[in-house]
Amino acid sequence: MSEDIIYGKNSVLEALTAENREINKILISKTIHTDVKLNKIKELAREKGIVFQFVGKDKFQPYAEFNHQGVIALVAPIEYMELEDFLEKPHNNCSVVILDGVEDVHNLGAIIRTCVCAGVEAIIIPSRRNVQVNSVVEKISAGAVNHIPIIKVNSLVNAVQKMKESDWWIIATDASAKDNYFDVDYNNMNFAIIMGAEHAGVSKSLLKASDYVVKIPMLKDFNSLNVSNALSAIIFETVRQKFKK
Amino acid sequence: MSEDIIYGKNSVLEALTAENREINKILISKTIHTDVKLNKIKELAREKGIVFQFVGKDKFQPYAEFNHQGVIALVAPIEYMELEDFLEKPHNNCSVVILDGVEDVHNLGAIIRTCVCAGVEAIIIPSRRNVQVNSVVEKISAGAVNHIPIIKVNSLVNAVQKMKESDWWIIATDASAKDNYFDVDYNNMNFAIIMGAEHAGVSKSLLKASDYVVKIPMLKDFNSLNVSNALSAIIFETVRQKFKK
Repeated sequence: MSEDIIYGKNSVLEALTAENREINKILISKTIHTDVKLNKIKELAREKGIVFQFVGKDKFQPYAEFNHQGVIALVAPIEYMELEDFLEKPHNNCSVVILDGVEDVHNLGAIIRTCVCAGVEAIIIPSRRNVQVNSVVEKISAGAVNHIPIIKVNSLVNAVQKMKESDWWIIATDASAKDNYFDVDYNNMNFAIIMGAEHAGVSKSLLKASDYVVKIPMLKDFNSLNVSNALSAIIFETVRQKFKK
Repeated sequence: MSEDIIYGKNSVLEALTAENREINKILISKTIHTDVKLNKIKELAREKGIVFQFVGKDKFQPYAEFNHQGVIALVAPIEYMELEDFLEKPHNNCSVVILDGVEDVHNLGAIIRTCVCAGVEAIIIPSRRNVQVNSVVEKISAGAVNHIPIIKVNSLVNAVQKMKESDWWIIATDASAKDNYFDVDYNNMNFAIIMGAEHAGVSKSLLKASDYVVKIPMLKDFNSLNVSNALSAIIFETVRQKFKK
């Protein structure tokens, strides 16, 4: 059975209170001191009938690179949503973000946070060539992964075709585009924003399948905006337009 | 003498070509294989009369946590600019970003990249309570630190006062502000945007000293936007307004 691991007191505590992830077991290092948070973890685990075990320091050795503070939870992996199920729901001026090969966990975590804050309805990632939503991403996202459906698809091109058939508009970002992202009217349509890989950008087949291709204008000859920051500029422009309509 | 370290072939190569950082010495591990990049590094170093040494693997032990690829450069630290020198220059509808206690290297690196791309004229950080611009930040910033002046001040409140005396407008961000960031007219003034610490936000004394306090409206009850993404939303709104005026 595939399992994810949640590290650290805060994250374990959040998983216990959020109740949207199945917790299989909590491991607590015998060597750590009891404090308010640890007591709360034990109390909630007892209430919910979740097993917690006190284990030797050596059990934490495989997780040494993470800031686990002597507490980890073994949880069921993130549940992905099916694109078809998502498209079947009613949507009205909704936004979706499609990630075409984002490889950095910090970027993915930051993107998920940004999407939740900006009211994005779902994030679509490819099942290959993209960092997956693992427990490290979950931690970096400050738990945001539990507040937005993640859709994993085998082919982004097929996904985009399906969305277009359901009357979604597809907007890809590309540094060499003619139009600026703020020249698109994002109101009155359901739309998907495609963000490309950190180095390669959005793949050609996706650019071709898109309804719009837009860029972020650079005010200095230094075309190296981090992908999560680029997304933030664009997605909050769509929010601004919602407020102004 | 204080020294910074630049890690990895790409970063060392960039430092050699950018020519804006004094390189004291380049260390190359005896055990790495020669490739195009390494040859280029040696060639440029010879041209510029920069010493490079082949050293044993053990010399890289202290840097094991960094992706050094067997090549590091010892460089002079980033040179900070004085606020007074910056303010003396002529400014016309310029922007500055003030960081009030940003503690995460990834955030600082991403913020510096965003600022360079958006044409921000300078970044002001406090000499304490903020992560400093070290070589890790430099790497994360993709070298952007070499394209924007960084100003380090003892007191942000004093810095803000000096800027106000020089007719700069001060805009602080705060989650509980009434006004949205996109309701400010950023044209026709020089302005500074203050971004707060990841958890505490902008300090009260700075909020009080500001001309405007603005928020980013959240479309979901999840008020946890990463500081670099928050800045990106705001700073690119100022860019949009420049294009639209």
